[in-house]
Amino acid sequence: MTAVDHPGPGVNIPDAFARSGVTAARGFRAAGAASGIKPTGALDLSVVVADAACPAAAVFTTSLAPAPPVELDRQRVEAGPIRALIVNSGVANAGTGAAGTADARAMGASLAGALACPDDQVLVCSTGVIGPRVPVERVSAAVPGLVAALGSDPDHATAAARGIMTTDSVPKQAEVHGDGWVVGGMAKGAGMLRPDMATMLAFLTTDAVASADVLGAALRRATASTFNCLNVDGCQSTNDTVILMASGASGVEPGTQELEDALTRLCADLALQMAVDAEGATKVVHIEVDGTADDDAARRLGRQVADSALVRSAFHGSDPNWGRVLAALGVAGVAIDQAAVEIAFDGTVVCRHGAAVDCDEDELSARLAGDFTVTCTVGAGPGSAVIVTTDLTPDYVVFNSERS
Amino acid sequence: MTAVDHPGPGVNIPDAFARSGVTAARGFRAAGAASGIKPTGALDLSVVVADAACPAAAVFTTSLAPAPPVELDRQRVEAGPIRALIVNSGVANAGTGAAGTADARAMGASLAGALACPDDQVLVCSTGVIGPRVPVERVSAAVPGLVAALGSDPDHATAAARGIMTTDSVPKQAEVHGDGWVVGGMAKGAGMLRPDMATMLAFLTTDAVASADVLGAALRRATASTFNCLNVDGCQSTNDTVILMASGASGVEPGTQELEDALTRLCADLALQMAVDAEGATKVVHIEVDGTADDDAARRLGRQVADSALVRSAFHGSDPNWGRVLAALGVAGVAIDQAAVEIAFDGTVVCRHGAAVDCDEDELSARLAGDFTVTCTVGAGPGSAVIVTTDLTPDYVVFNSERS
Repeated sequence: MTAVDHPGPGVNIPDAFARSGVTAARGFRAAGAASGIKPTGALDLSVVVADAACPAAAVFTTSLAPAPPVELDRQRVEAGPIRALIVNSGVANAGTGAAGTADARAMGASLAGALACPDDQVLVCSTGVIGPRVPVERVSAAVPGLVAALGSDPDHATAAARGIMTTDSVPKQAEVHGDGWVVGGMAKGAGMLRPDMATMLAFLTTDAVASADVLGAALRRATASTFNCLNVDGCQSTNDTVILMASGASGVEPGTQELEDALTRLCADLALQMAVDAEGATKVVHIEVDGTADDDAARRLGRQVADSALVRSAFHGSDPNWGRVLAALGVAGVAIDQAAVEIAFDGTVVCRHGAAVDCDEDELSARLAGDFTVTCTVGAGPGSAVIVTTDLTPDYVVFNSERS
Repeated sequence: MTAVDHPGPGVNIPDAFARSGVTAARGFRAAGAASGIKPTGALDLSVVVADAACPAAAVFTTSLAPAPPVELDRQRVEAGPIRALIVNSGVANAGTGAAGTADARAMGASLAGALACPDDQVLVCSTGVIGPRVPVERVSAAVPGLVAALGSDPDHATAAARGIMTTDSVPKQAEVHGDGWVVGGMAKGAGMLRPDMATMLAFLTTDAVASADVLGAALRRATASTFNCLNVDGCQSTNDTVILMASGASGVEPGTQELEDALTRLCADLALQMAVDAEGATKVVHIEVDGTADDDAARRLGRQVADSALVRSAFHGSDPNWGRVLAALGVAGVAIDQAAVEIAFDGTVVCRHGAAVDCDEDELSARLAGDFTVTCTVGAGPGSAVIVTTDLTPDYVVFNSERS
């Protein structure tokens, strides 16, 4: 299994970087168009179409006020199989009440009509501003052209990846090659990112042979350690969705562990691209926690650290402020033994047995100017987790205080 | 019962504003000094001394990594009675391990020695940077002078209120007068403020007659709807403490409800002063939630809204962004009926039945330039709560990214 190379954290992916993303796996075509939802005239509507209806699985936001398309997709994925998905950006079709449900159904029906498949084989996603309704007539008018333009080369995949962007500065695509099969995908998300599916969408496809149940189990495990370990601003959204479809076109049925490993690498790649592109962020910080009773406890501790505006402001200032990290660890609801706590910034231990360790702070601070890792050992247990976050910057606040 | 007037939110309290604060109640004296802990030479050590050991109660941080003085005070309050307390600012005596416990004990012993009372009648608090040890020799050297200088006039109370300040720009004091008795106090806190006791200290005194049990019950209820409904940046600390002492010097034993009401008004006043003085904040926002099954559910919803960096960035931009409020309500873990949700900014309904309501957004935005209230009705239940928060500003991030 080999991953396609991609630029590391801190490096924006050039527009011209060719990836097949959501069409890397055989049996899928995609397209993106400007339907007029975005006033800028940018791409705002994407479709992904399988050659035939196929097994699918999904993970959705845990919000108790989900957007209408989320509720629709939940039913349709449960019923399966799935032929295609249609996604608009610009408006989220959230906070739209009963009208929003009708709009989501109409969006899906327009694609189902063009593909001559049952309505319930089409999944519908929206992302953007909460409140406004989707201009369904514009979507319907654009669908025939999108279907006519479907293709599986990198240009088509990239157009689809652009069509789902909101505040993203670059399209996000990745692919991982198994032994005779491929899993690839595209994602969007640059703010409102945090555990349990934040404002992010990811659409993944594979040509492996797998049942919906196998896909679902692998997807849940893969997202738990990737998208759900990404925390950019502690904000969750109404629309977050990860969808995985399997065409089976490779004829290869990988082992469940092999499939999960590939999916995890794919999701980790896309999650890192989201962190790199996070609104206002200047650096990516990995929070490693170990020594807990189990992985879940480590994840809760890491998320609490990444949730702290004080900790993330210190990251911005290249300040190895372990006191704020300790304070955050203390309020995660996980019992920790302060006498066992050791905290390191970029490999340099600054707190041992819960107390300060002398170090050359100026030298260490200089090393925190770019991406770095904070390691928190809180005991001798076998649990561990890695949370990916970014610094909190004045630009984030400026950007998010502008009226939308 | 009449509250002493004080400037409202958005108005800084002038230095010269005379309040008795922690010495408003008979039977208490206070003093503040510069012991040399703060490199600036500012006041950094305060004492409050009762004429005789008296009943006391306290509420502490829920952090599972509390500072050594918190652990010490927990034991001493439980044992009671309490004669005095000593508080330093500048260093928090947190993240200091076993040495920190010895330092806290030594700090208390120096005051106990000067007052000729048992060590365990003295409570010890620290606030400031996490990591460094308290310079106990400087504290001990300053204690005789502090004890010699004790007084009960406003100047002494204000000196004590200044001695506990860290990033506060003004001392925070309040008093509420009952029928023949008084409860007053001082507090500090301007960042790291959030539910369940954040980086805040409050020291309250009354001359009412009350047992430790009565004081404890009233204090827990008063803090639940005041300090624990204040959320400035979602960060909790290692040191948060509220202490209440009752001298009984008035000879009046108020009813439990009367005592609780007065304490609630006192704590609400101090909490509001903290919000007004929050780091970088330019406006105070009240989040009112109603229609829930119970008050606890309303509090969880309101806290989630006040925890959202996106919501608070929108507050800064005077943006009535109800979509972000709805998204936050959805992830509080409280079931809500979207069709029943109504959200108003400054009394103007912008979302009804979970969907947009037309309004003059420019006119509304102009009204959000100063303090305002966001009202969220999520059903028809009897539960309600008010959470006090502020806007998130670029200045907050700049301030907190500076190396300490």
